[in-house]
Amino acid sequence: MFEFNIQATEGGSRAGSLITPHGILNTPLFAPVGTQATVKALTPSQLTEIGASLVLANTYHLFLKPGDPLIAQLGGLHRFMAWENPILTDSGGFQVFSLSKINQIDEDGVTFKSHIDGSVKRLTPEISIAVQENLGADIIMAFDECAPPHDRDYNLRAIQRTHAWAERCLVAKTRSDQALFGIVQGGIFDDLRSQSARFISSLNLPGHAIGGLSVGESKEDMFHSIEVVNSILPENKPRYLMGVGTPYDIVQGVARGIDIFDCVLPTRLARHTTALRLKDRLNLVNASFADDPRPIDEECDCYTCQHFSRAYIRHLILAKEMLAATLLSIHNVYTLIHFTQRIRQSILEHTFQSILEEFSTL
Amino acid sequence: MFEFNIQATEGGSRAGSLITPHGILNTPLFAPVGTQATVKALTPSQLTEIGASLVLANTYHLFLKPGDPLIAQLGGLHRFMAWENPILTDSGGFQVFSLSKINQIDEDGVTFKSHIDGSVKRLTPEISIAVQENLGADIIMAFDECAPPHDRDYNLRAIQRTHAWAERCLVAKTRSDQALFGIVQGGIFDDLRSQSARFISSLNLPGHAIGGLSVGESKEDMFHSIEVVNSILPENKPRYLMGVGTPYDIVQGVARGIDIFDCVLPTRLARHTTALRLKDRLNLVNASFADDPRPIDEECDCYTCQHFSRAYIRHLILAKEMLAATLLSIHNVYTLIHFTQRIRQSILEHTFQSILEEFSTL
Repeated sequence: MFEFNIQATEGGSRAGSLITPHGILNTPLFAPVGTQATVKALTPSQLTEIGASLVLANTYHLFLKPGDPLIAQLGGLHRFMAWENPILTDSGGFQVFSLSKINQIDEDGVTFKSHIDGSVKRLTPEISIAVQENLGADIIMAFDECAPPHDRDYNLRAIQRTHAWAERCLVAKTRSDQALFGIVQGGIFDDLRSQSARFISSLNLPGHAIGGLSVGESKEDMFHSIEVVNSILPENKPRYLMGVGTPYDIVQGVARGIDIFDCVLPTRLARHTTALRLKDRLNLVNASFADDPRPIDEECDCYTCQHFSRAYIRHLILAKEMLAATLLSIHNVYTLIHFTQRIRQSILEHTFQSILEEFSTL
Repeated sequence: MFEFNIQATEGGSRAGSLITPHGILNTPLFAPVGTQATVKALTPSQLTEIGASLVLANTYHLFLKPGDPLIAQLGGLHRFMAWENPILTDSGGFQVFSLSKINQIDEDGVTFKSHIDGSVKRLTPEISIAVQENLGADIIMAFDECAPPHDRDYNLRAIQRTHAWAERCLVAKTRSDQALFGIVQGGIFDDLRSQSARFISSLNLPGHAIGGLSVGESKEDMFHSIEVVNSILPENKPRYLMGVGTPYDIVQGVARGIDIFDCVLPTRLARHTTALRLKDRLNLVNASFADDPRPIDEECDCYTCQHFSRAYIRHLILAKEMLAATLLSIHNVYTLIHFTQRIRQSILEHTFQSILEEFSTL
């Protein structure tokens, strides 16, 4: 279980596969985000048709509502949301720091106010693992602290906590059918990133993630940090760049050895009437699309582009019809998943360099 | 084209088929409503999976937004909404009277204020037909006036206008690939209903509809009016009971010779967190469903019931996730379509009486 095999490499890029209890994940891959046990506006059947393999869900949200004991009682997250393919849950760390009001951070954990009802809740490494074991995802994440990327003192303290918490997560973990990934932190500071990558690698976990990027630092800093970290993380384990990204970020991440990506971007843009394309975006509310008979992307094979015009989608948006978000989500998620699949194929065929050149500028 | 064949009868009920340019409609059938060129929260692919054959769209709404010339320019309504099976458009009459502020009704037509932006618009029989020809549905409806069911004087004036307008619609019609159905009005008054049924029958149209029911009169009055009208309408043409209904209404309508039903009920209930079942409804927001692992209906074969628990759907509702409306719409529309298909099958097998007895009380 959780064996990671690399089928081909080209430069820093790798085409691999990770065995999980719910199927094999072919990498590089893009995972859509199902925050509250649903990828917004899409059924699992639509996700399958789109070609999704891995879906991410948020521990923080499910811990608060409906609560992980209920999901466990109902047979776990796969059954609850009817997604029989692999699932990854994050640790709740990032959301605690970004969504809730923190009451107290100490060495043991975090006490915070729920963003839903203000009730006081607590997450520790042990609680995060217990929640993630109740949810039952294939890949679970160590509880970490994500610091502002440019604050050196904060990042120094944060990696110390993140490292201690990763060790405690490993001790707390009881299920053998879940892979625990450790998270490297350290902001934009090379020495902290290196120190963190070395420590997390030393835990001999089945996979590694890079956290705390795409949170305010420059693209240059982001890609530099990935290079620093990936020069240390072992090559024979999957590497997951959390919360990224755009088509450009994915190409550049793959070139630096990243295998797994996730981002709310495609579904969030969809709910804001925007179609994602590989090199630009279309805001379909614009009047210029009022009588445009073309699909969003004439090269795209998704259900939306095979059936609907820009004019129709604009009509749905103006008419406040829910179908607009569904059709845009189908297209946007399809675009990132198939782009990443195309990248994988190019690595297998040793032609990734041409995609990299095509996406060498933002 | 538009040939209607009756394969079997049992009492007043009939199992038939109507040939249209976009396929054969097997009757009795239930048509979901796609008011603004979309059945709310469902893709055409989901509608096909549900088993929908005929979809209704509203001329009034599409006339106002995005406008029928645009839809014609984009290839017509089938292509616009990517529904390659039969479509029926109503005439706009009912919505003008129920949704907009009427400025003036005269013998020629109706001037009204748009419910969207208050702009002044006009519909006449000729305009309604022109709009419906631009939309291009397989079945189009004569422009009619729907009066309050208990107001005799109003209904007397309304049927006179409705009859004159039906004749003008027939004259205005130019496309041979659309079937124009006439609409019988007359409120709850037997003599007016009879007079209207005789007049509309005399136009020798390919199908007939009964309008102005399920708008405030008692169930007893509704079914009595259907009996009065259907004793006059020719048996060899399809009969469409507009805006109805519930499982009970469908069974009772079929028993009285109705072939086609449409109603916003299943999709409207879905958006109000309610699951429709043949003999009751479940409001899934109720706390009693919080940990209920059962599907909405243990006998139901729809995608929703085959994959999701009541607890999951309740979670989606509380989490304000769009998927709740989609999953409930799938179930609710499936329930009415498959129930009507089951009724059709029972007529073919001469066992409809047992369904009728099962649904003899509300």
